[in-house]
Amino acid sequence: MDYSEDGFPQLRKDPVIGRWVIISTDRAKRPTDWKTEQEVKTDGFCPFCPGNESKTPPEVFALRDGGSKPNSTGWRVRVVSNKFPALQIEGHLNRRGEGIYDMMRGIGAHEVLIENPEHSIDLAALPVEHIRDVFWSLKERICDLRKDERFHYILAFKNHGKAAGASLEHSHLQIIATPIVPKRVQEELSGAKKYYDYKERCIFCDIIRQEKSSGVRVVSDFGKFITIEPFAARFPFETWLLPCDHQSKFEDIQEDDLSELAGAMKETLLRLNKTLDFPPYNFIIHTSPQLGTDFPEYHWHFEIIPKLTKVAGFEWGSGFYINATPPELAAECLRNASID
Amino acid sequence: MDYSEDGFPQLRKDPVIGRWVIISTDRAKRPTDWKTEQEVKTDGFCPFCPGNESKTPPEVFALRDGGSKPNSTGWRVRVVSNKFPALQIEGHLNRRGEGIYDMMRGIGAHEVLIENPEHSIDLAALPVEHIRDVFWSLKERICDLRKDERFHYILAFKNHGKAAGASLEHSHLQIIATPIVPKRVQEELSGAKKYYDYKERCIFCDIIRQEKSSGVRVVSDFGKFITIEPFAARFPFETWLLPCDHQSKFEDIQEDDLSELAGAMKETLLRLNKTLDFPPYNFIIHTSPQLGTDFPEYHWHFEIIPKLTKVAGFEWGSGFYINATPPELAAECLRNASID
Repeated sequence: MDYSEDGFPQLRKDPVIGRWVIISTDRAKRPTDWKTEQEVKTDGFCPFCPGNESKTPPEVFALRDGGSKPNSTGWRVRVVSNKFPALQIEGHLNRRGEGIYDMMRGIGAHEVLIENPEHSIDLAALPVEHIRDVFWSLKERICDLRKDERFHYILAFKNHGKAAGASLEHSHLQIIATPIVPKRVQEELSGAKKYYDYKERCIFCDIIRQEKSSGVRVVSDFGKFITIEPFAARFPFETWLLPCDHQSKFEDIQEDDLSELAGAMKETLLRLNKTLDFPPYNFIIHTSPQLGTDFPEYHWHFEIIPKLTKVAGFEWGSGFYINATPPELAAECLRNASID
Repeated sequence: MDYSEDGFPQLRKDPVIGRWVIISTDRAKRPTDWKTEQEVKTDGFCPFCPGNESKTPPEVFALRDGGSKPNSTGWRVRVVSNKFPALQIEGHLNRRGEGIYDMMRGIGAHEVLIENPEHSIDLAALPVEHIRDVFWSLKERICDLRKDERFHYILAFKNHGKAAGASLEHSHLQIIATPIVPKRVQEELSGAKKYYDYKERCIFCDIIRQEKSSGVRVVSDFGKFITIEPFAARFPFETWLLPCDHQSKFEDIQEDDLSELAGAMKETLLRLNKTLDFPPYNFIIHTSPQLGTDFPEYHWHFEIIPKLTKVAGFEWGSGFYINATPPELAAECLRNASID
């Protein structure tokens, strides 16, 4: 059997539960590589800083001052391909099976969105209008990647801080377009559809309605957006940011709403920073897949997870979590955080 | 709304994807508690050491030298209730809903199996016959907990090393009996059942057959047990240990087979230790639930996961993993490890 892919990474499907995994066949890490795992770079050379534009792959998108040229200084937000992509952009999927197993080439896009030129300013510290530019750029990239029919899902996320998996300090988002729909999203879609079929209502809309009415898990109600601590939060201070009106795709957000979204994200991160003393965190946008059909039962949202705990074997192995901070307490702490 | 439970922890169900989470309502952790999270104790007092039997809750099981009394020295393996249990043993489930949400009292058992009296000897370093005693004790505890009809699943696992979530250094396993079937297990059961309905064969038996025939992902074939690196491994050096003959419940293992299982586990841990320089790790037993019915399509096994990587936002949020060490390479390294 030949498991090489001519330099391509490989997508493999778990035959029991159907989860797809990216296996890096190129630059595979040997045991010694794990012993010397790279630290977050905190000084020295940064490929994301202005003046180093030639050290990244060419930009695919940028917001620039008038007159500045691509791949030079003068940008406010810059999107480039990841220099070490998890997936390769060119090629056919070559879907196939070998006995019981299913696999395909690891085709996809992997981009980095550099949020601002300043090395040491993170997302929460940017002015609201600049955060708006970040989300605007993200929306543009997603709309562009949607045109490629090989991609079934576009995943946008942020790793902030070493404990949350960031490998470069300069604040950035990542965008991964994949030929498969990630398992978690599939589960949410299927749960939302079951509810929709039975109730003829969106489950997320019902969650928002119930949370607004009880109030105990609401962090902030911004009007068009709301932040809540979810009822069955897996992690302490896990926070969801949702549009109050039903909308199934992030990239369908109205331009007029981007500023409020930016303000909501900034305030939420400031509350988490104040309450938890600048924790490492991850956030991820949960949105509809690109499958040539709409998912009216789905409701896009951000899930923000401060990295406070070590997840133990129990949780890995079972998908069953223990959360030592009730979401009602977390919401109260976050509401009371003074962020002025 | 009242979210307290008279001192009980609470089990809450995510309304979208159906995952149950334990929320600790008693001793809830406030933000400052997260800043000072407890380190693994490496010196000083150990409640698991001989002579300190009175510092743990009373033992529920022990293998003892003839003549020694319960809760005194003289034990080889000792099982006690967890002093800080995630679930409470006494009480009714009190299942109920509030609007869109479902919850019940956090009823369950949470036990600690102290593997051996010596403080600094870990599982891999024990003689095979002692590891056999550990698995024998585990089997006994599971068979006893099965009698309580409130419990639908009995989860046995090990956290080894601080990075893997261990809070005490003295080597131990944990057993959690829960009134719900964990999500991961449900997924495996449902995947295995779909395959069984279609093929009239166990999917794990088919995996073992294909792996034996190709050989590239086999670490060791012990005869009655086999260790493999799974085809779609989420993590580098993720290792599964399975019985070669079909068996759906761990606790149905024949006494005669316990020694080979113990030897297989020891050798596997030694290979991981040699290859990865004594990594922190988790293992968990995946076995059939206790639902008053049999699951002939399921095949119990251990999943062993060395903790080498930080799992990033991408993976949390999507359930979609990137593994930088192909399982074929991992299997080769583990096969070649000299463990004599």
